[in-house]
Amino acid sequence: MSDAYYIHLTERLRELINDLDACEEGRLPAERTLAEHFRTTRVTLRQALAHLEGEGRIHRSNRRGWFVSPPPLDYDPTRDAGFNDYVKAQGRRPRTEVLLTDTRPHRPAAEALGLSTDQTFFHIRRRRFVDDRAVLSESLWVVPERAPGLLEGDYVSHSLWGQLRGRWGLTLAHRSLRLYSEALRAQEAEELGVAAGTAGLSVRRTIFDARRRPVEYDEEHWLHHALCITVDLENTS
Amino acid sequence: MSDAYYIHLTERLRELINDLDACEEGRLPAERTLAEHFRTTRVTLRQALAHLEGEGRIHRSNRRGWFVSPPPLDYDPTRDAGFNDYVKAQGRRPRTEVLLTDTRPHRPAAEALGLSTDQTFFHIRRRRFVDDRAVLSESLWVVPERAPGLLEGDYVSHSLWGQLRGRWGLTLAHRSLRLYSEALRAQEAEELGVAAGTAGLSVRRTIFDARRRPVEYDEEHWLHHALCITVDLENTS
Repeated sequence: MSDAYYIHLTERLRELINDLDACEEGRLPAERTLAEHFRTTRVTLRQALAHLEGEGRIHRSNRRGWFVSPPPLDYDPTRDAGFNDYVKAQGRRPRTEVLLTDTRPHRPAAEALGLSTDQTFFHIRRRRFVDDRAVLSESLWVVPERAPGLLEGDYVSHSLWGQLRGRWGLTLAHRSLRLYSEALRAQEAEELGVAAGTAGLSVRRTIFDARRRPVEYDEEHWLHHALCITVDLENTS
Repeated sequence: MSDAYYIHLTERLRELINDLDACEEGRLPAERTLAEHFRTTRVTLRQALAHLEGEGRIHRSNRRGWFVSPPPLDYDPTRDAGFNDYVKAQGRRPRTEVLLTDTRPHRPAAEALGLSTDQTFFHIRRRRFVDDRAVLSESLWVVPERAPGLLEGDYVSHSLWGQLRGRWGLTLAHRSLRLYSEALRAQEAEELGVAAGTAGLSVRRTIFDARRRPVEYDEEHWLHHALCITVDLENTS
């Protein structure tokens, strides 16, 4: 394969994607059809598709083929908005699915919150969608003493942070975020409908209240290109 | 492959990695040797290795096999430190290699800085190492009017930001960052010695001076798990 041909093919695919984006569903024709249409091999076609996947223009869904990717969500971690709020504010449709709840110890949560390792937590594992695409798999670990009865309430259809504030009068005063790029492991990849090893973004959040009491530890796994972290800084140095 | 065996294998590999980490080089034995040692197939072994790669414990280097990964660099985007400074502050060794310099237009830089698309820039493409591991491939686009003669000076062995401040008296007052997880494209993957499609972190930075004049646009591509973004927030909501 010549570089020139590869670039040409990538550009023609880009045009096709722009056209698909303008209509509705945004699903690409099957690889076999595309390879025939562009008179190329599956190998070359896949390289061009992988290039566009790397740019975040398209994504692969297990068993269902290639789709045009929507623009990423913008998220400013210095502002205090929950998922439902910032998804809606960007004209998109949020949805949350609870996969599991239980009560048990979790060493990373205990360590992050400065608690003993036999501390038990209310654990909520959930999957979140934007416009019906699964973009986030997460586990929340809430300190039971801060929110007694949490798992008996309706924590699904209401904002968890909203409830922590309204029902238990907590302030989520001190928040610390750690973000890094990761290769998605089997469980998260399965929940997001992609292959294990697909690029993802890990976000770990620890929250303390105004009295510095530990409230919550979150582990989030985002599909790559689903979230764009934006930070604006002003200084005079 | 049973789940129980897979978990057992992953844990035994984790122990081996901890042992290797404690000694010097941190290079894992060849996959064939590992498969024989653990009496398993290459397929199962690779799944366990991929799991540990997903956790950031090990990484693959093209043609050279598997290595124990060093801990990620911590980077707080709200603080104003350059690469050399924060790498050294964490007891690690920074190195920079210039791959290319030229002067030409670049549409994304022009758009990000609010300039016309025929604006030319001083372009520096470089690769950065931590402890001799290539972790970052980046392109810098500097507005020539802000730093005339930049490419004729010694912009390699000195901090670029330090020079912009010292030699041209600029303040880097307004900085905006956009971060997202990506699948590395062929060029960046090649420069970082990994396979195209490997998980990476894209950081795009725009910088304006105190008079709101555009100074610089950066495109950074980090290896996954090489950088951990940390942000601490305080609020009273």
